[in-house]
Amino acid sequence: MLEQRKVTLDEKEMPDKWYNIVADMPNKPLPPLNPATREPIGPEALAPLFPSELIKQEVSTEKWIDIPDEVRNLYSIWRPTPLFRARGLEKLLDTPAKIYYKYEGVSPSGSHKPNTAIAQAYYNKQEGVKRITTETGAGQWGSALSFACRHFGIECEVYMVKISYHQKPYRKLMMNTWGANVVASPSDKTQAGRDILAKNPDSPGSLGIAISEAVELAANDEHTKYALGSVLNHVLTHQTIIGEEAIKQMEKAGDLPDIVVAPFGGGSNFAGLAFPFMRLNLEEGKKIRCIASEPASCPKLTKGVFRYDFGDSVGMTPLLPMYTLGHNFVPAPIHAGGLRYHGAGVIVSQLLKDKLMEARSHHQLECFEAGVKFAQAEGIIPAPEANHAIATVIAEAEKAKVEGKSKTILFNLCGHGNFDMAAYENYLSGRLIEHELTDDEIQSSLSQLDTPTVD
Amino acid sequence: MLEQRKVTLDEKEMPDKWYNIVADMPNKPLPPLNPATREPIGPEALAPLFPSELIKQEVSTEKWIDIPDEVRNLYSIWRPTPLFRARGLEKLLDTPAKIYYKYEGVSPSGSHKPNTAIAQAYYNKQEGVKRITTETGAGQWGSALSFACRHFGIECEVYMVKISYHQKPYRKLMMNTWGANVVASPSDKTQAGRDILAKNPDSPGSLGIAISEAVELAANDEHTKYALGSVLNHVLTHQTIIGEEAIKQMEKAGDLPDIVVAPFGGGSNFAGLAFPFMRLNLEEGKKIRCIASEPASCPKLTKGVFRYDFGDSVGMTPLLPMYTLGHNFVPAPIHAGGLRYHGAGVIVSQLLKDKLMEARSHHQLECFEAGVKFAQAEGIIPAPEANHAIATVIAEAEKAKVEGKSKTILFNLCGHGNFDMAAYENYLSGRLIEHELTDDEIQSSLSQLDTPTVD
Repeated sequence: MLEQRKVTLDEKEMPDKWYNIVADMPNKPLPPLNPATREPIGPEALAPLFPSELIKQEVSTEKWIDIPDEVRNLYSIWRPTPLFRARGLEKLLDTPAKIYYKYEGVSPSGSHKPNTAIAQAYYNKQEGVKRITTETGAGQWGSALSFACRHFGIECEVYMVKISYHQKPYRKLMMNTWGANVVASPSDKTQAGRDILAKNPDSPGSLGIAISEAVELAANDEHTKYALGSVLNHVLTHQTIIGEEAIKQMEKAGDLPDIVVAPFGGGSNFAGLAFPFMRLNLEEGKKIRCIASEPASCPKLTKGVFRYDFGDSVGMTPLLPMYTLGHNFVPAPIHAGGLRYHGAGVIVSQLLKDKLMEARSHHQLECFEAGVKFAQAEGIIPAPEANHAIATVIAEAEKAKVEGKSKTILFNLCGHGNFDMAAYENYLSGRLIEHELTDDEIQSSLSQLDTPTVD
Repeated sequence: MLEQRKVTLDEKEMPDKWYNIVADMPNKPLPPLNPATREPIGPEALAPLFPSELIKQEVSTEKWIDIPDEVRNLYSIWRPTPLFRARGLEKLLDTPAKIYYKYEGVSPSGSHKPNTAIAQAYYNKQEGVKRITTETGAGQWGSALSFACRHFGIECEVYMVKISYHQKPYRKLMMNTWGANVVASPSDKTQAGRDILAKNPDSPGSLGIAISEAVELAANDEHTKYALGSVLNHVLTHQTIIGEEAIKQMEKAGDLPDIVVAPFGGGSNFAGLAFPFMRLNLEEGKKIRCIASEPASCPKLTKGVFRYDFGDSVGMTPLLPMYTLGHNFVPAPIHAGGLRYHGAGVIVSQLLKDKLMEARSHHQLECFEAGVKFAQAEGIIPAPEANHAIATVIAEAEKAKVEGKSKTILFNLCGHGNFDMAAYENYLSGRLIEHELTDDEIQSSLSQLDTPTVD
């Protein structure tokens, strides 16, 4: 007798709309502010960087946004993604909880990032853009965008943080294989890069610097636009195909989650799975708990403050109302590179402030312990980012066992760890370092902010 | 309008039987010979190395073998695997041919190898085996077996060719993550290893040496058995789930291949996809051409001879009737490590001799050129082994274009290249070396054979 483990959807069952949670939010997000005048700014301020359709989506209050057929055709290389019942993990934990996961690692670049990369490349192509610039750290986002640009015949230039460029050559090679131009940042191709190099020729680079370089190029060339892989509203919206598929799959499994969990960096991973389930809460009064799992070394949701802050480290972007640790906060070099961001996207921040979601933080060692348990029980070796969600899931499943309650838990296995085996080697050999972050350090970073506060 | 690209099967549609082509072969395989007496040997000779159920399968002439539920339950972590229409590649080649591929890279270890690893671990578990030893080169097989043993609670000891152990740490780490003990071979744990090290303390190892070590341990310990990842009949049979699924998927797509292509190392990759389609030829008189794609630097099917030879390099195994380059043949160090084997499995050899299948060889540069084209058109970066099949597919699709004929081509994309990015770097940077093999070198290797010939 075959135990059901996997719930698949046919290509024809792929959702044809993204869900824009702004339409359903009881309190709408506060407007961004001009950093100089501190007055609210409109969408036109974004025009040098993004194509008009993406700007329209960025400020849209429409509940549903049609997914173009060209985007769905390309999604179908790996979507709909499978939903799994984690029977092996349930047995290992000996828990009465039922655990499900949505697996986004089946995409060509191995994470959920292509969901928005393809949409962004498509709208840029529609508006005649010839080149897209972006930044990348560990390379998840850069590789997703390279793949998408390749398909639509757009030149892709990725500014990759120099230390990662040299330490993690394989994701760079993946981008090269898809035809992207990958530049170690800081570079001499931009004023921002040259300024940094003049001061410090050996600068290892940072995501903040790489953003400045990519943005500078887009701002100064009418044929070039810029793309961001998380944080912004339109990016979060594109990811909701994950949760909309998961709802159909949970229905097929005859189940509904009590708890939905996803890793949290800038918000797109979490939004992708959780917003559609929050829709059920907002529309139908369901009581699904949605939990964002963040690193204890970068705890903007659990220990940050809600106020206006810059989206980048250099202070070039509009001021955004968000949970933040301060834009000068430098997260410890944990292996989950995708979660090392000082702030949270605007929508997620408002939802957390309104107590429509929860957040939880985990230390790095706990996360790798959870990841290895998962790999041994389920087979798939998770990306270090995904291990944060798994740590939350294991904690909830163990609580269910203590309480003797059955609960249904669903989480986002946002990517595989095939390019992160060096991190697992560190863990397995006992050399993984725990990065302790004190409240004083957080206060010190926050005290440097002179940006507007919010009541 | 959504173009159909992916054909999925529901878990319930997963085949529940493996197909044993021996039942349908017009000429049955010749028996193996005792290397000393050169007399035919029976299945009892295999008893020290394999559990009885696998030996039964090895010599079975039953057409269908039931897949145990426990095996299907574990298969369902990634099976049924998707079948894709390669619309991007078709456009790139501007060919009238329709191209499909079956994608086995969605398994936890990233290749087709777990199809047999799980079955083998299961039967060993049933018969109380405590430990399984095996050899691995690049690590595809070793990682698959580690994953399978983990699930069934069997200790797994992998002898990994020393040079790969040091040069390719990531697959070793994958095995460690699943709890396997990975030993660099030659080691001081076996007599075979100690003998080699006494003569050459710096020996880089070879697959032949690693096999000797793994076999020695199994032969000398009643609780330990040995497992092989290709060549043997039962291994090929386990892989036929690939093709049996593909037949159902091609039916759903309303199509039937004219040509089926798969990479060829020892035969399990090719057998997995092609044997079920050969079944349609043998049962229903269909005329599906089945083509095995091998490296030009290891061309046993296209340039070897059909005669008795040893399965290993050291000359410890029974003599098998096969296409071979001679068991002393040392293939050039191409990146497709999984195809560097001097001989072909017994069943495939007989089928080729009887002209029921074809073979084609490709140079390494042609294969990487094909692989990069595929990655750019379809997204997935293929394993170097899979690139051989893609090279054949592109050649057939281009022929179809010249002839102005529509043909339907299906191939086995047996794994992803996430752990082979260094090989792509070599290719993209123009540093990839072509290994030219002369007919004299082949003749020189073959002339050393003193094993029985076959008419």
